[in-house]
Amino acid sequence: MSVLIVGTTALDSIKTPKAENPRLLGGSASHAAVAASFFAPVKLVGGVGEDFPKKYIELYRKHKIDLEGLQMLPGKTFHWSGEYELNMNHRRTLATELGVIETFSPTLPPAFRNVPFVLLGNIAPALQLCVLDQMKKPKFVVADSMDLWLNIALADLLKLLKRVDGFVLNDSEAELLTKEDNLFVALKKIHALGPKYVIIKKGSHGSVLSGPKGIFICPAYPLTKVVDPTGAGDSFVGGLMGYLASAKGSIDAKIRRAMVYGSVTAAFCCEGFGLNTTTKTKRAGIEKRVKELEKLVRF
Amino acid sequence: MSVLIVGTTALDSIKTPKAENPRLLGGSASHAAVAASFFAPVKLVGGVGEDFPKKYIELYRKHKIDLEGLQMLPGKTFHWSGEYELNMNHRRTLATELGVIETFSPTLPPAFRNVPFVLLGNIAPALQLCVLDQMKKPKFVVADSMDLWLNIALADLLKLLKRVDGFVLNDSEAELLTKEDNLFVALKKIHALGPKYVIIKKGSHGSVLSGPKGIFICPAYPLTKVVDPTGAGDSFVGGLMGYLASAKGSIDAKIRRAMVYGSVTAAFCCEGFGLNTTTKTKRAGIEKRVKELEKLVRF
Repeated sequence: MSVLIVGTTALDSIKTPKAENPRLLGGSASHAAVAASFFAPVKLVGGVGEDFPKKYIELYRKHKIDLEGLQMLPGKTFHWSGEYELNMNHRRTLATELGVIETFSPTLPPAFRNVPFVLLGNIAPALQLCVLDQMKKPKFVVADSMDLWLNIALADLLKLLKRVDGFVLNDSEAELLTKEDNLFVALKKIHALGPKYVIIKKGSHGSVLSGPKGIFICPAYPLTKVVDPTGAGDSFVGGLMGYLASAKGSIDAKIRRAMVYGSVTAAFCCEGFGLNTTTKTKRAGIEKRVKELEKLVRF
Repeated sequence: MSVLIVGTTALDSIKTPKAENPRLLGGSASHAAVAASFFAPVKLVGGVGEDFPKKYIELYRKHKIDLEGLQMLPGKTFHWSGEYELNMNHRRTLATELGVIETFSPTLPPAFRNVPFVLLGNIAPALQLCVLDQMKKPKFVVADSMDLWLNIALADLLKLLKRVDGFVLNDSEAELLTKEDNLFVALKKIHALGPKYVIIKKGSHGSVLSGPKGIFICPAYPLTKVVDPTGAGDSFVGGLMGYLASAKGSIDAKIRRAMVYGSVTAAFCCEGFGLNTTTKTKRAGIEKRVKELEKLVRF
């Protein structure tokens, strides 16, 4: 089955202590779509400006991503630039130029409205709601978000949470949302806001799912070198949704394994700048690491 | 088989935002010995002062801990007092009164020298070396430590690391020791210092083992309430060593499961002040949580 993914389609300029990479393909939808494409057909919803490089359109096409929902708008592509500190756990935003994203309003092509798996990637909750409004009875809807929306668009986000099956956020965002530093108490509080499945990401410490079948502690793939963690969270949820859309069985029967696939896809993302390593990855390489992870947690 | 445990036997005064508990039984050896006692006979090596409450001797006895190596010395028992912040991840030492520990020199009773499993709990590396010098061909020796010794007794600690099978430390200590923030690179650097088995503890994020059979990612038991994390690390390594001493098979065949038992024992420790909850725990309660953890990581 297919996955519909909405989110930002951006140009990222990323600085780390070792290198500087201007205008890489980035944005939540780009990372999630490429990650999901290893498992299932992807339909992308987003907006880019006139400066959006052709090579990035080709990159999407290489991953067989359906671009009928990618609007080419007058103006500039959303541009984010940020800098990582030495240990890669802290980053600061140097500049955010919204460009076309400021006025972007997603209108879904008819063929997009029946897609069963919907990933509302990190973008303004109002846009996530706008996409959800256009969908016809999707089978499984997951939303991602970020601290920015918790701070400036909480009412919209809370409205959204009542309408999604799953919600993914990181540990500091979970604390920001619930005012609770205990992760397992925070999970319960987030369930009370609506979602049946809540996943809290903890970076290199893995992630935790709370769902109808209880808690699942998902490991992160052990990396000895992190080049650029930008987009890792989007790759995680993209890989997760792609796997869910591709595999047989109930959501409950496959969501744990889907998280492991997401975790491995995110690890590839961290090994290169932007999408450089993700896009070179093959399904066989993902399968190999999933098998490795299985051995790393067995006791 | 038995476990010999050396470390501090202390009185801890612990303040949290919710409560204040003066002069609880504490110290690395106390926590580790009680934790190990659920699995194997324990021989304790330590020193206490004349003020050491009888009820704590009785607590050790309740856990069938052999106290022939516990010296009663003129002076006061080592007393530590500390305060936790709201989120329990940060604590500060309010006072450290070394008391008898300042001049304590462990002399092992003859019956202690043939014990096969040796846990050199957190205490000055010189004392850990002094105990190790008195042992006759132990089967498996693990050392624990803390940032203090990395800062003020590094030469002794490095000498010790060449002579132990396993070394346990937490993530910030691993970074302090190796100047490396990537945990998997840090593990390799610590192997180069001697130990065949290196375990890095990550608090509520679990722990990671690196050994001859590769990496093992060990989960922490999910707690919704942490009352007092003091001694959790000591309980972890105590439970680990107790399980290793009790179970059949090679170290490699059982060390992963031993970590899970350590992890669960540490979780009980966190649920009460000092040893209050640990000492009320039964083996059946530990087994129940180990089974739960098995389900929480399965995919």
